[in-house]
Amino acid sequence: MAGPVLLACDWGTTNLRAWTLDDVGRVAAEHDFALGVSKLAPGEAAQRFEAEVRPALQARDLPAILCGMVGSTIGWREAPYADCPAGLADLAGRLTKVAPAVRIVPGLRCEGIAGGPDVMRGEETQVLGWLAQNPERRTGRHVVCHPGTHAKWVLVEDGRIVRFVTAMTGELFAVLSHHSLLKSDAPADDDAAFDEGLAAAGEGDALAARLFTARARVVGGKAKAESTPSYLSGLLIGSEAASAPRLLLGEAPKHVVLLGDAALCTRYRRALVRRDVAVEVFDGEAAAIAGLFALGAPR
Amino acid sequence: MAGPVLLACDWGTTNLRAWTLDDVGRVAAEHDFALGVSKLAPGEAAQRFEAEVRPALQARDLPAILCGMVGSTIGWREAPYADCPAGLADLAGRLTKVAPAVRIVPGLRCEGIAGGPDVMRGEETQVLGWLAQNPERRTGRHVVCHPGTHAKWVLVEDGRIVRFVTAMTGELFAVLSHHSLLKSDAPADDDAAFDEGLAAAGEGDALAARLFTARARVVGGKAKAESTPSYLSGLLIGSEAASAPRLLLGEAPKHVVLLGDAALCTRYRRALVRRDVAVEVFDGEAAAIAGLFALGAPR
Repeated sequence: MAGPVLLACDWGTTNLRAWTLDDVGRVAAEHDFALGVSKLAPGEAAQRFEAEVRPALQARDLPAILCGMVGSTIGWREAPYADCPAGLADLAGRLTKVAPAVRIVPGLRCEGIAGGPDVMRGEETQVLGWLAQNPERRTGRHVVCHPGTHAKWVLVEDGRIVRFVTAMTGELFAVLSHHSLLKSDAPADDDAAFDEGLAAAGEGDALAARLFTARARVVGGKAKAESTPSYLSGLLIGSEAASAPRLLLGEAPKHVVLLGDAALCTRYRRALVRRDVAVEVFDGEAAAIAGLFALGAPR
Repeated sequence: MAGPVLLACDWGTTNLRAWTLDDVGRVAAEHDFALGVSKLAPGEAAQRFEAEVRPALQARDLPAILCGMVGSTIGWREAPYADCPAGLADLAGRLTKVAPAVRIVPGLRCEGIAGGPDVMRGEETQVLGWLAQNPERRTGRHVVCHPGTHAKWVLVEDGRIVRFVTAMTGELFAVLSHHSLLKSDAPADDDAAFDEGLAAAGEGDALAARLFTARARVVGGKAKAESTPSYLSGLLIGSEAASAPRLLLGEAPKHVVLLGDAALCTRYRRALVRRDVAVEVFDGEAAAIAGLFALGAPR
């Protein structure tokens, strides 16, 4: 195996994942850092990258490529958004150099659902990395869902991201679980309650009303309070699965590619299969690595 | 004017409003107390009612009637729910006596939208009080909306509450404004941003996705961060106005009675009028007083 040729980082709001990659994109070493950009003071990203990230990965002299919120106004430096449609070649031509050997992948921007823009930073690298991993998907039309705090529903056509819709489902779950009448410390691991929540989601309409059912089923003696997080998770993911892809496409999709964290993908799969959508699941981290390698490997 | 004959209290989660009423239901004296049931220890409601509420209203010997969360498990004592359909006569026959001269109005329960029950405590007294104030409404079918932390959409037929739907719109606004990416201390007083939010609400579908537009319009440079609370308020109320009454009725209503806080009713009116719904606004406090008088006046 050849030595590493690239330092690749997925540097988000709460966390930084870093890998060194060899000349065919295989992982040589990896390291996680609790250096999310939300915790950094201005100017701190550059300093800690050189002082901590490079030494930990033994990557002092490697070219580096970074994606994610590190390219936002609260990151290292703002990497201007690229507009959709955009594929790997479009992003490769728009990297922002922030130090002699350090470049940041641009986020993506498209026309949103209410006259304003929609935006992403980091997910574009995963989606395009998934295309790099799967050459047979580089033609045709694909609906990709990246679940998370801000889930992304992405329409890909002939190898480029055409448009996308963001849903704040994960953040809604977090704020309701911590700060509302529905708050609970119980784990969200009750499959039956999750399925009840999916059923209560209807067609993704009237979410504020459907949310109250999570309270009423407990007050009315139909369910135990410990099942509320699972029910709430099902209700929110079910609502998103019914409605967000329709905003993207104008109709329900027949096939969805899930790309991301395995546990979260399992929940989205359950919500989508219930709606007669065919689902394939791919690993988000592997896709991120493939995307960073495709964009950053020395030529 | 005759002396007061009744001590009437709307005793909720965060606040207690008390009035003494004369023999035709006019207010003789009124007083607010920061004695919401969420702040009371077990047994404390009875003690503070006798030690503080009765003396402040000079109502030591008056019969008293209470509505609201005081009848819940965290209140004075649980007043069992009455089932829909229910009118004033039904509630009057189901008061819970908690002390020799103190009675609590039952909450209402109906079949909810997801197999479980829906519940209310306090709003039933306002809705039925509104009917008591407006005898010409005691026949026919009316859709009443009571905005609030947990907004209620209530179907009234021939003087009785037939069923209702609760929407957690006010609570969603509070948790998102305080704890999410959309948090802000700015006031929600920007009418143009409120209207933008109404437009972004669509038909009340895909709320988690539409919520992200509140972030994207600022990140994308289309709007100032200070306008986020107004936009968010419009988005949430617009979503509720488009979808919650359809859950209640199976179709959009042509006419809605708004009953509650004046400022909040103004916002709901704006959302509904935009949807070509005819709206009448009535004062919630006056309706509560009329309902408590109808249920509690000595005969």
